[in-house]
Amino acid sequence: MPIEIPEVVIDRLPLYYRLLSRLESEGRAVVSSQELGAELGVTPAQIRKDLSYFGRFGKQGRGYSVHRLAAELRQILGLDQRWRVAVIGIGRLGRAIASYPGFEGQGFDIIWLYDASPTLIGSEIEGREVRDISQLEGDLRADPVDIGIVAVPGEVAQDVVDTLVDAHVGAILNYTPNRVQAPPEVELRHINPVLFLQSMTYHLKRVRGV
Amino acid sequence: MPIEIPEVVIDRLPLYYRLLSRLESEGRAVVSSQELGAELGVTPAQIRKDLSYFGRFGKQGRGYSVHRLAAELRQILGLDQRWRVAVIGIGRLGRAIASYPGFEGQGFDIIWLYDASPTLIGSEIEGREVRDISQLEGDLRADPVDIGIVAVPGEVAQDVVDTLVDAHVGAILNYTPNRVQAPPEVELRHINPVLFLQSMTYHLKRVRGV
Repeated sequence: MPIEIPEVVIDRLPLYYRLLSRLESEGRAVVSSQELGAELGVTPAQIRKDLSYFGRFGKQGRGYSVHRLAAELRQILGLDQRWRVAVIGIGRLGRAIASYPGFEGQGFDIIWLYDASPTLIGSEIEGREVRDISQLEGDLRADPVDIGIVAVPGEVAQDVVDTLVDAHVGAILNYTPNRVQAPPEVELRHINPVLFLQSMTYHLKRVRGV
Repeated sequence: MPIEIPEVVIDRLPLYYRLLSRLESEGRAVVSSQELGAELGVTPAQIRKDLSYFGRFGKQGRGYSVHRLAAELRQILGLDQRWRVAVIGIGRLGRAIASYPGFEGQGFDIIWLYDASPTLIGSEIEGREVRDISQLEGDLRADPVDIGIVAVPGEVAQDVVDTLVDAHVGAILNYTPNRVQAPPEVELRHINPVLFLQSMTYHLKRVRGV
């Protein structure tokens, strides 16, 4: 793809896709940028601009074909294929992620769960066995995954990420409080409630004038 | 503040702040945009541009004063004050959030925990009592909080958000799989692993050419 799409636009695409899937399941044929905008809290102009990066959707005044736009987004986002996921760290947070109801039917298959705790290793969560984290490296070499979700204690996060990177895992979601490093070709995101709250208080301060 | 700061810039400020706090605790006086960039995986030009929105920091070629920049960011982000937080929904995910080690010393005080489950109500988590969710509305009216973290089942998420909005909670972090609505003056974020994964697969597809 020749044009560099801004990251903030890419982050909105799953929201468009989710809304369009819902409209599609409700039997809707056409949707306007006004309606998409109202549902998503984005201006219609922003919607048109976001979708124009991908070049081929709809015409102003006529609305978007729900089916065609959903199918295109599915393809653009890679949701027309299956992705193999490993969750490393099965404490409260890892277990909550492994049982998250939203994964169903979205093309993400949680293949493996890992933990270091002897009380967890060998137990079953949502029908999957928790494996010993010492087996992670060998398992990934024998049978690679696409995505790693890291929910171990912060102090071992970088070690786990290094193992995932060495095993060519292409995308890593880091739920630990520690910031970790990965080479630029690896897609790495940090999901840290404190950082979300800190950018929210920026807005709170302004709204409240405190 | 007259200039509209892009949301993506605001989201990076907590990362700058965290790194500067660390440098400050290590006794560093000055830091360059090159070093900040290398640590954070952002170009030095982006760092300079981001910080230029706030107008008063450093000079090119001389680096930034670590102490001054950290203090300014603390003030800009509202981290020089304390924020009251309620967590609603104390299942695995809510409990993981309530026990998240990263909140300590960051100005966020988790005041209240709520759940609807009779087996949880009255129990203690991290020294705080879990209260009956039916008390949420009255509690917030008597003793407001600034931030609500919502980790209830998706189907009741909107009800909880409505209660928070009615009680003038200014910022809401929604961890449920359901998208919820709030008026524009409320700062609302959705933390949904599926949506994060879906924007990551966009990149995976491109890197792998699949």
